[in-house]
Amino acid sequence: MSNRPSFETYLEEVTAEVTGELKQTLPVHWDVPQSLVDAMQYSLMAGGKRLRPLLVVAAAEAFGAQRTAALPVACAVEMVHTYSLIHDDLPAMDNDDYRRGKLTNHKVFGEATAILAGDALLTHAFYSIVQSGRRSGVSADALLSIVEELSELAGARGMVGGQVADMEGEQGMTDLAQLQYIHLHKTGDLIVFSLIAGARIGGATEGQLEALRVFGRDLGLAFQIQDDILDLTGDEQKMGKKTQSDVNQQKVTYPYFIGMDASLQEVKSLTQSAKDALGRAELPDPSRLMEIADYLMSRDH
Amino acid sequence: MSNRPSFETYLEEVTAEVTGELKQTLPVHWDVPQSLVDAMQYSLMAGGKRLRPLLVVAAAEAFGAQRTAALPVACAVEMVHTYSLIHDDLPAMDNDDYRRGKLTNHKVFGEATAILAGDALLTHAFYSIVQSGRRSGVSADALLSIVEELSELAGARGMVGGQVADMEGEQGMTDLAQLQYIHLHKTGDLIVFSLIAGARIGGATEGQLEALRVFGRDLGLAFQIQDDILDLTGDEQKMGKKTQSDVNQQKVTYPYFIGMDASLQEVKSLTQSAKDALGRAELPDPSRLMEIADYLMSRDH
Repeated sequence: MSNRPSFETYLEEVTAEVTGELKQTLPVHWDVPQSLVDAMQYSLMAGGKRLRPLLVVAAAEAFGAQRTAALPVACAVEMVHTYSLIHDDLPAMDNDDYRRGKLTNHKVFGEATAILAGDALLTHAFYSIVQSGRRSGVSADALLSIVEELSELAGARGMVGGQVADMEGEQGMTDLAQLQYIHLHKTGDLIVFSLIAGARIGGATEGQLEALRVFGRDLGLAFQIQDDILDLTGDEQKMGKKTQSDVNQQKVTYPYFIGMDASLQEVKSLTQSAKDALGRAELPDPSRLMEIADYLMSRDH
Repeated sequence: MSNRPSFETYLEEVTAEVTGELKQTLPVHWDVPQSLVDAMQYSLMAGGKRLRPLLVVAAAEAFGAQRTAALPVACAVEMVHTYSLIHDDLPAMDNDDYRRGKLTNHKVFGEATAILAGDALLTHAFYSIVQSGRRSGVSADALLSIVEELSELAGARGMVGGQVADMEGEQGMTDLAQLQYIHLHKTGDLIVFSLIAGARIGGATEGQLEALRVFGRDLGLAFQIQDDILDLTGDEQKMGKKTQSDVNQQKVTYPYFIGMDASLQEVKSLTQSAKDALGRAELPDPSRLMEIADYLMSRDH
């Protein structure tokens, strides 16, 4: 293991491969209006941490699967994440002009095209999942389970439900339980999906999938509390967006309910319980997933 | 065959079964914000012809498949159709206040919830497809092909691409080829999907799938030209919407380009070529699909 790349190298490598794959995700022989392709590509290529694809790849590799088998599903989850950001930014929702330091999709392409580019990205995510099987022999049963889980975790009872709860929360109905529902679904469910989809590609057992669900749930919640904290304390330059936006939009956050110290403590203890669950799963090589958990807890943007 | 139900009875029966299935499509044990469920159900239950589900069922039954095996996919395509209507009606798109004589989704639930209800319906369609397999043993390979085809035909190179082209057409760039692209994709592709998905459930051969693609393409185009015609000549009461809206919105239509007589002729000849393709497919019992083709051509709303 002496020539094992550092975590930073691993991160750069996977991010570059995912970004390369995303660039060519729309089949070039398809006859699609150029404005639609441009709008889809614009947001897909707008940067971001590529956290969810990283989790798909790291989970698959923790079982010894080839990275190429995981890349189409890694792209799928990034498409779903990207579509959700495009729709979240719309005037009818958060009405944001900037995202990651760039104009939001509807500011560049107009509202109608932005809505449709989001719709097309969500739809194309399912296409991309099927390609995993075509390209590298992931079984049809595993792929169907991945389709089923994405449709649950990104849909009404998952990410979209979390977004609706978040909107309603802005109208002043939030308590801590409600905030936890929002965090678990709006952010957490897609993180859980990424992990179990990668694990399915790697051939995980039911017990291992269950452990990864717990890992993802705790990691996702820690991630989102850390986001709440960074929104209050982070560096605007590093974050690529205005900090204190939650305060300005009167959004309630973990620090608002339990204070800053307890929030910091909660991130630590959730990260630890995530790692404990991962330890119990007995994966062939959980080391990258462990590193990701530590990395997320200590990030400053 | 003396006790074979009439086409009208068949139509009523299938429509009732599909509507019953749609009512319970969201699993009741799921923890989903009530406003989101209400918004999804509102548009799903707003009526409509249920044409696409009918095509799924009729295609599956043409191969001798059980109707129950086809119902989840029939619901899936209606969810996709419904989401597309919700998004089309938004202020940023067609800005319609009424649809089928009822207030549009965003007029009742607000724009943000309408966008998210559309997103959730699209996502849930894929969940529903997987349930076909769980419920009645459709093979994982067939279901994956159905997922792949829906993601193609409802996405960037299909329905969404058609919608983008339609929007751009309103800005005055349309010629007949462009209008045909719009009709083929915005309306036609989901009709093609319905037929081949039903056929896959019924165990169609590749040759039969290809024939059904041609049937669906011609039928879908005939259907949309008939819509153009009815918009100019139809009865507002029967249509459940204002007629001449295309004229008022300065949308170009088939009659605009080739005249009313030639448009009526085109509907007839496309319907005939659709039926010819169907005849060549040698299905065990194509009679309901033939009846549907005749019914669509002669409808007055």
